[in-house]
Amino acid sequence: MINTDVSQDQELRAHQDHHSSLRLWLRLLSCTTLVEDKVRQKLREQFDTSLPRFDLMAQLERHRDGLMMSELSRRMMVSGGNITAIVDQLEKEQLVQRVVVPRDRRSFKVVLTPSGRTSFVQMAQAHERWVVELFSGITGEQQAQLFSLLGHLKTGIRQHYVTSVCLDQS
Amino acid sequence: MINTDVSQDQELRAHQDHHSSLRLWLRLLSCTTLVEDKVRQKLREQFDTSLPRFDLMAQLERHRDGLMMSELSRRMMVSGGNITAIVDQLEKEQLVQRVVVPRDRRSFKVVLTPSGRTSFVQMAQAHERWVVELFSGITGEQQAQLFSLLGHLKTGIRQHYVTSVCLDQS
Repeated sequence: MINTDVSQDQELRAHQDHHSSLRLWLRLLSCTTLVEDKVRQKLREQFDTSLPRFDLMAQLERHRDGLMMSELSRRMMVSGGNITAIVDQLEKEQLVQRVVVPRDRRSFKVVLTPSGRTSFVQMAQAHERWVVELFSGITGEQQAQLFSLLGHLKTGIRQHYVTSVCLDQS
Repeated sequence: MINTDVSQDQELRAHQDHHSSLRLWLRLLSCTTLVEDKVRQKLREQFDTSLPRFDLMAQLERHRDGLMMSELSRRMMVSGGNITAIVDQLEKEQLVQRVVVPRDRRSFKVVLTPSGRTSFVQMAQAHERWVVELFSGITGEQQAQLFSLLGHLKTGIRQHYVTSVCLDQS
């Protein structure tokens, strides 16, 4: 389970002659991958579950009234087929259930069951602890700086999205 | 193609009562996802290709002598089956080829063909431009700060990996 293997470090793709933004992007990507890998590993070891299952349950925990399959797909960024398979499996384990939508009896929403919620809360607490540990190598002040800089970056990227859409439409 | 939809913003999962490290992680993840989505979209629109194909070709460009399938799998973080399918498709398009390993004639390595290399260089140049654009919302100084902070974060995470391996083994 050692994952310090350099082979999975996207940053190694960076050359000295690459633009500094590209080197920054590869570093950002490699940090994300390192954290995600650790979270995947811990979810598997401690809860015998996967990141897509955890993400799906996290979406349902935020939407107590349930979500249609199409809404789940849109929010999760995994393909519809995968989501159906995950929901089927979670339903078999009685962690979620499909409920008919009152106003449209041909449709249904997916909701967490009470035991699904209990299970999710345990995983979410552990997940938060793992993240706190993984980020503990930098100080609170550095974390605050990073949070702020990433906020500016995100605003810039979103701005870029909007601008390119406007240009596409003009 | 508008992707400013809030539904794909992992940061919305953050609650006020979450630990600041968790909020930082969700922001990091959402920045990565935004950039990756844009790169996927551009690769599809401008080169009719996918991010895993681009990543695989990037690995081969770095390893001119070619890579065994198992090495490719390890470096790419996508499952072996997918890699075989991607290599098959790229071979059909004459962008990569399988070559027999001289010392072990039962094995082969995958290498970029000359036209594969030309094709990759064009994509890589465009990819670098997109990334520069996406990161242009923050100043060079902010990018340098971010690069440095992410470097510290990465060192901390790797340290954590090593420590937990040592604890597991003790």
